[in-house]
Amino acid sequence: MTDANQEHNVRTLHYLGPEGTFTHQAALEAVAELSPLCGGITLQAEPDVTTILNAVQTRGDWGVIAWENNIEGYVVPNLDALIDAADVAAFARVGVDVSFDAFVRSTGAEREDGRKNRDVAANADELVAHCTTITAHPHGLAQCRRFAAEHGLKPTPAASNGAACRDLKPGQVALGPSICGELYGLTRVATAVEDYPGAHTDFLVLAPRGEVPELLNELKSRTGEFESIVTLIPLSTGPGVLANLLDVLRDAGLNMTSFISRPIKGRGGTYSFIATMDAAPWQERFRTALTEVAEHGDWVKTLAVYPRQERPNPPVYAWSLPNGGVRLDPDSETSATLSASGWQNETTTRKELLW
Amino acid sequence: MTDANQEHNVRTLHYLGPEGTFTHQAALEAVAELSPLCGGITLQAEPDVTTILNAVQTRGDWGVIAWENNIEGYVVPNLDALIDAADVAAFARVGVDVSFDAFVRSTGAEREDGRKNRDVAANADELVAHCTTITAHPHGLAQCRRFAAEHGLKPTPAASNGAACRDLKPGQVALGPSICGELYGLTRVATAVEDYPGAHTDFLVLAPRGEVPELLNELKSRTGEFESIVTLIPLSTGPGVLANLLDVLRDAGLNMTSFISRPIKGRGGTYSFIATMDAAPWQERFRTALTEVAEHGDWVKTLAVYPRQERPNPPVYAWSLPNGGVRLDPDSETSATLSASGWQNETTTRKELLW
Repeated sequence: MTDANQEHNVRTLHYLGPEGTFTHQAALEAVAELSPLCGGITLQAEPDVTTILNAVQTRGDWGVIAWENNIEGYVVPNLDALIDAADVAAFARVGVDVSFDAFVRSTGAEREDGRKNRDVAANADELVAHCTTITAHPHGLAQCRRFAAEHGLKPTPAASNGAACRDLKPGQVALGPSICGELYGLTRVATAVEDYPGAHTDFLVLAPRGEVPELLNELKSRTGEFESIVTLIPLSTGPGVLANLLDVLRDAGLNMTSFISRPIKGRGGTYSFIATMDAAPWQERFRTALTEVAEHGDWVKTLAVYPRQERPNPPVYAWSLPNGGVRLDPDSETSATLSASGWQNETTTRKELLW
Repeated sequence: MTDANQEHNVRTLHYLGPEGTFTHQAALEAVAELSPLCGGITLQAEPDVTTILNAVQTRGDWGVIAWENNIEGYVVPNLDALIDAADVAAFARVGVDVSFDAFVRSTGAEREDGRKNRDVAANADELVAHCTTITAHPHGLAQCRRFAAEHGLKPTPAASNGAACRDLKPGQVALGPSICGELYGLTRVATAVEDYPGAHTDFLVLAPRGEVPELLNELKSRTGEFESIVTLIPLSTGPGVLANLLDVLRDAGLNMTSFISRPIKGRGGTYSFIATMDAAPWQERFRTALTEVAEHGDWVKTLAVYPRQERPNPPVYAWSLPNGGVRLDPDSETSATLSASGWQNETTTRKELLW
């Protein structure tokens, strides 16, 4: 942070580079949402998450890290890093749709088109017809197989989607987030070319731990409900440790929306638990539960507190259950099972459950 | 399965290709461990996990899928696929160390050396000095940055480590599992070149659900303890749902070694829980707990039952806790916290916990 930045309270937000990745897109989301909290935000690309956490801890800057993807689950190395970071906490959560646009590098008029707007070029089919290869990170290539096959393009892996777009050569199609069009002056030839739509990644925005209460006070004046992510480490192991821990959260009326265990690094057989819940540290139910857990001698750390996004809370209907599996209907005389072949009688059910 | 295979009870084991990946190495582990259960195992590489599950369900073959990595966590898409597969269950779990060897393609005597044994070539330094680039999957390149930097090699991404080794050109170093040496006739120039040793991936071996009890009977005659993985879906949501579910497992004395929640695909706000526990379906404590859960009306499916690997079960010592966080020592008059700056008094502690 320069002196000039400090004067105007401009913050630096560090993200995992290179430019033109989905993380960059998330950082731009964060800028749009959080700029009102300060005098503006400047972005800085970093080579790895360790560098981002260090910038937050030692320079008092902000950082953004990938947290959870609806297909791949948690970004576990980032989760472990945040658990282990001494003076960092998250105060915002932003999401981006993992949707790929297809780009080519062309000259003259088409290029100007691509820079000016987010539309697909008028002569897109013709431009793609001149290409023979398609380039992206292997994950990107795997998610857009149909588009490659339809256009007879040979997959060519790149180190990242951002790098694929940046280094795009004539005769190649690159896949990347929509921001790559303007960023690298590319011509858009198709949008949302992923085989299965709906992938989504959430990111956490980090600040020095001591600054977070103040930031949350600002946010409280704009938003209603908050969510928190806490880590819990029981100081003993064995049957019932987790159940006893969760009884405390239940008895305090805390609703959890995500819960996972993680082995503690280098300590085989020991675990931490990471819970996301509908509560904030200034609420009585949060304080009661976490103080009780800590007084049991278990280890507790609040990783994140942020404004909660809208979400549904429906009952689970039988039709949404996966294939196979067993359910004994308590409201019915005849217990039954859901299986590939339909409802079966209780004898079969118990056999399937217990073998 | 051909008629000849059926006669000799030779099984086909499907794995995610191409040849020369860590999954291929896991498949070879499975062959070594499980061949005694049948008349031999032949391997078949597949393009994706869907094809593997289909082969198990429709052709009665076996499959192997990546399950959990100690750094990255669960392979969530595979977990979701197994939860949703109608007639598939796992009966074995095999692990491989994610350790990279470095290879070059050379001619004559050196090549013969590489094919014959797992030693590093005598003139390895000289062979590497002739190279300018290093190729692997981007994850492999990210895990072996130090080796690349030390030898001034420029990273060149490949679609998979197996493909990098298979397509290796003179002047390039490829990174891959040790099996790639023999597989592709390459010369080994270094072993275990990863920056951080200790990465490990576990895989599950799958069979048609109906065949699993018989396979487990075979395995019971050789091994002592078994582990099971079950999925549970509560048919309601809200505070306490998970705590109530886990109370049942605790009261039955079931020890869990892993526990995670997963949103149910396409049904925002609903969750399944995946628990790994020290119990098998033929044990009373397993039957009691799972029958009670199913009788509550919750959905239950046993995904895997397999011989348990040795593991430690130590208490958690304070020195193994992550940085920051709070613990109120119940055995001490003065409650204290673990933080980067050492032990602090209770006032600070509660402030850190609750902000």
